[in-house]
Amino acid sequence: MTNGADSIIATALDQGIEVCFANPGTTEMPLVAALDRAPRMRPVLALHETVCTGAADGYARVAGKPALTLLHLGPGLANGAANLHNARRAVSPVVNLVGEHATWHKSADAPLAMDIEGLARTFSAWVGTAASADDMGRLAAEAVAIAKGRRAIATLIAPHDLQAIEVEARSFSPPRYAGPSVDFAMIEAAATALRQPKAALYLGGAGLFGVGLERAGRVAAATGCTLIAPSSYNRLEVGRGLPTIHRLPYFATAAQAYLDGFTHVVGCGVDRPVSFFGWPGEPSRYLEGREGVIWLSGLHEDALPFLDALVQALDAKEPIARYDAEMAQMPSGGPLTAETLVEVLAVGLPEDAILIPTAVTTGFAFAAHAGRARPHTQLALTGGAIGMGPSLAVGAAIGAPGRKIVNLEADGSGAYALQAFWTQAREGLDVTTIICHNRVYKILQIELERAGLAIGEASKHLTELDRPALDWTGLARSLGLEAEKVDDVAGFAAALERGLATPGPYLIEAMI
Amino acid sequence: MTNGADSIIATALDQGIEVCFANPGTTEMPLVAALDRAPRMRPVLALHETVCTGAADGYARVAGKPALTLLHLGPGLANGAANLHNARRAVSPVVNLVGEHATWHKSADAPLAMDIEGLARTFSAWVGTAASADDMGRLAAEAVAIAKGRRAIATLIAPHDLQAIEVEARSFSPPRYAGPSVDFAMIEAAATALRQPKAALYLGGAGLFGVGLERAGRVAAATGCTLIAPSSYNRLEVGRGLPTIHRLPYFATAAQAYLDGFTHVVGCGVDRPVSFFGWPGEPSRYLEGREGVIWLSGLHEDALPFLDALVQALDAKEPIARYDAEMAQMPSGGPLTAETLVEVLAVGLPEDAILIPTAVTTGFAFAAHAGRARPHTQLALTGGAIGMGPSLAVGAAIGAPGRKIVNLEADGSGAYALQAFWTQAREGLDVTTIICHNRVYKILQIELERAGLAIGEASKHLTELDRPALDWTGLARSLGLEAEKVDDVAGFAAALERGLATPGPYLIEAMI
Repeated sequence: MTNGADSIIATALDQGIEVCFANPGTTEMPLVAALDRAPRMRPVLALHETVCTGAADGYARVAGKPALTLLHLGPGLANGAANLHNARRAVSPVVNLVGEHATWHKSADAPLAMDIEGLARTFSAWVGTAASADDMGRLAAEAVAIAKGRRAIATLIAPHDLQAIEVEARSFSPPRYAGPSVDFAMIEAAATALRQPKAALYLGGAGLFGVGLERAGRVAAATGCTLIAPSSYNRLEVGRGLPTIHRLPYFATAAQAYLDGFTHVVGCGVDRPVSFFGWPGEPSRYLEGREGVIWLSGLHEDALPFLDALVQALDAKEPIARYDAEMAQMPSGGPLTAETLVEVLAVGLPEDAILIPTAVTTGFAFAAHAGRARPHTQLALTGGAIGMGPSLAVGAAIGAPGRKIVNLEADGSGAYALQAFWTQAREGLDVTTIICHNRVYKILQIELERAGLAIGEASKHLTELDRPALDWTGLARSLGLEAEKVDDVAGFAAALERGLATPGPYLIEAMI
Repeated sequence: MTNGADSIIATALDQGIEVCFANPGTTEMPLVAALDRAPRMRPVLALHETVCTGAADGYARVAGKPALTLLHLGPGLANGAANLHNARRAVSPVVNLVGEHATWHKSADAPLAMDIEGLARTFSAWVGTAASADDMGRLAAEAVAIAKGRRAIATLIAPHDLQAIEVEARSFSPPRYAGPSVDFAMIEAAATALRQPKAALYLGGAGLFGVGLERAGRVAAATGCTLIAPSSYNRLEVGRGLPTIHRLPYFATAAQAYLDGFTHVVGCGVDRPVSFFGWPGEPSRYLEGREGVIWLSGLHEDALPFLDALVQALDAKEPIARYDAEMAQMPSGGPLTAETLVEVLAVGLPEDAILIPTAVTTGFAFAAHAGRARPHTQLALTGGAIGMGPSLAVGAAIGAPGRKIVNLEADGSGAYALQAFWTQAREGLDVTTIICHNRVYKILQIELERAGLAIGEASKHLTELDRPALDWTGLARSLGLEAEKVDDVAGFAAALERGLATPGPYLIEAMI
């Protein structure tokens, strides 16, 4: 027997999708039963939908292809929306499957009914609601093709009754999306610009890892240009032996000053840089109204053909601009602070690890040390919706088995998705989480100070997390993880070693 | 100094709003500073926005007026959306304040930018974005008036820069909303119908508590009609000495059969009943196409004027139809099951407690015993987005100080909002949570069985919560609560007594 639900799952499998991050409900039961009949699709259960969507993002970043999410009507999709916003900003492909009330029940406006399409449009490039069971396979093929071809989020809404209707089994050819076309005159202009003394290549997307980064390294070696990454990115490879990439500063004045130091800026695989917030008196768009800017391709376009063309135009044969910094040094001891913590991490991070530096303040501190660590991959928070680290780690671990995942997380942001730790334990995922426990929304106190606002009673109440302090070790153990608490350099270094040696998830509560 | 942010907070205070459930970010810092200058507005911090919005719903249900939420841009609002859906279905007034990027920065499409208005429209009756600082007070007055007058959600979007611009201090008269008008011919028809032998008064809103319930009791005493509550409701008063209210069954066939037993049904303060899901072969709308149905008012209208008119038309002077059932009896002992647990709770629930029975399966089981318990208030899950219990409890405790709050919660749904327990601890709220720990999404396994679907590998994986089992006692202690674990009747009875005697929050992990 094949029904509408089966045709969705079979089509997704045909297109190479292998994982479904799920928190289903009654209206998704035929899809759950279809998963029973499709053992090649791996179901991963989460206690909250934000884990499903964050995991789908993390999976897409390391596996290079979408996963499914399976979510319960509008409220289930709403619970996953913040991480879908992050995924949209990361240009991570994700295919959401969302159940809807039975077609004959929809107009009854039952309690769970809401405007699912309107909600989905706030983060999806494509939204489709199946009008028949026969429609489901075709729509699934379209959703997957859009997600892959446009590096975007596609949301397929499947009415409950239609999922269970029998249909003929058939396969669907997805629509094809052409790659970007390269303008060779612009490539020549970019090559000329990059040969100037103060030139920078500002990179995103595929330019920050693997073959793209290797090409960028050759361009830098041939021209002497500086490589710059955005302050946030989907995926970045960094460390000793890899091309040096400078990260654009987070605060606007510093970012503007940094970019103003270059007479020529070439952009590739990334949108023009803008300020994260509109801070009073600070700039909004850093490259606006200035000379010497050439943009090869934006964030939604594949950077690779442009970098290939640049390499050819420059005849850039030197394989790589090697980073020759010293290996990071272990601090001599003493108390754990944001600074000593990132120094220990720079020493201890294993080669080929995937680091998720979603602790806002400590994550910035690590950036200064990343080049002196062993080569590793970083997945950053892209959309600013905090709390995705533990969920991103779930997806990264499932998408890159055999690699060590390290999540550098804060207490404030980590508390957003405690549920993700349970899925890490359930699936035995090799994730070491470091909670930088400072008992405060540090970034907000910095912002208050920058805005010249005194910290009064209410703002103190709304930025401090110390009453009560979270017991992170207890939380982690209660969710099925091994965990320990440390407060000095030696203790943290030993804990990090233990965490990395433990094959399943491990949490280190680092008091800073 | 008064600025746009001050004028929002001052206007809200003028309209009687006293509490702000907040998880702010950079774009809300001027509003946070305005709270520093407005000590009469109580700020309550939550670790996740779903706690803010669920608490605002709980507060509105017991305080009878809205609270503010303060949320960070679109992703913050998205994180609170599922509980705003629940609040919309509960017709609870809520006023959301959401920061937006600075007006001069908006077109830069910075990482956190998204379609906040589009998102807000999926659950709000009113959405407004301030176009100037001067606009902010007026819009705040409109938002509060809509929330109160239409029992709805109003979302005010406040751009970052405008919040900080100085404005003249002034007060705003909110628009007025007229109450419903009563059709006395229809009241006469309803009175006649309710005097028939098999007649029911189907009640919602203000008909289920306080004066409205007292009126409904008089109507029942005068006519002999049966009082029926929906299977879910904003607020219900029930227990010995209060009018007997029968709760409409959850499953459609049973609900249809129950209503078919009445020749006359009068509705008041409630929409016509529909099935929660569209189950194959079961009805969608229970009262469709039948005789003997009179509808006085819907869910968004105040039930009270209609009940007053009915009382007058019937000259219903008997004060109340008293429920004369026996007091609930303590079970003799033995293991804890869903059934013995609710029996103990029916005995132990103190008078005037507020019970939040959001555990789906155990909550239904308690309904059969509620009439034999001491008189208490129940707040139910209205929109079907599970996981709101602990957040609803936060708001109820703040809105009704001095009353005991009891949250009968499941492990599956409780895991949705672990963050709420931290706010309970931080604010020292008198909430006793009972986690009915059965290590399974029980309702989903029931649904699979009802749909005739065998439980295969994937559906087993997606409905079981036992690998690893959550350590609820550990979780609660790590979040700052007192907690204990029990597995038999005597242990649970003693734990319930300790929990109720503890002034702050207390969690009982009840193994069933």
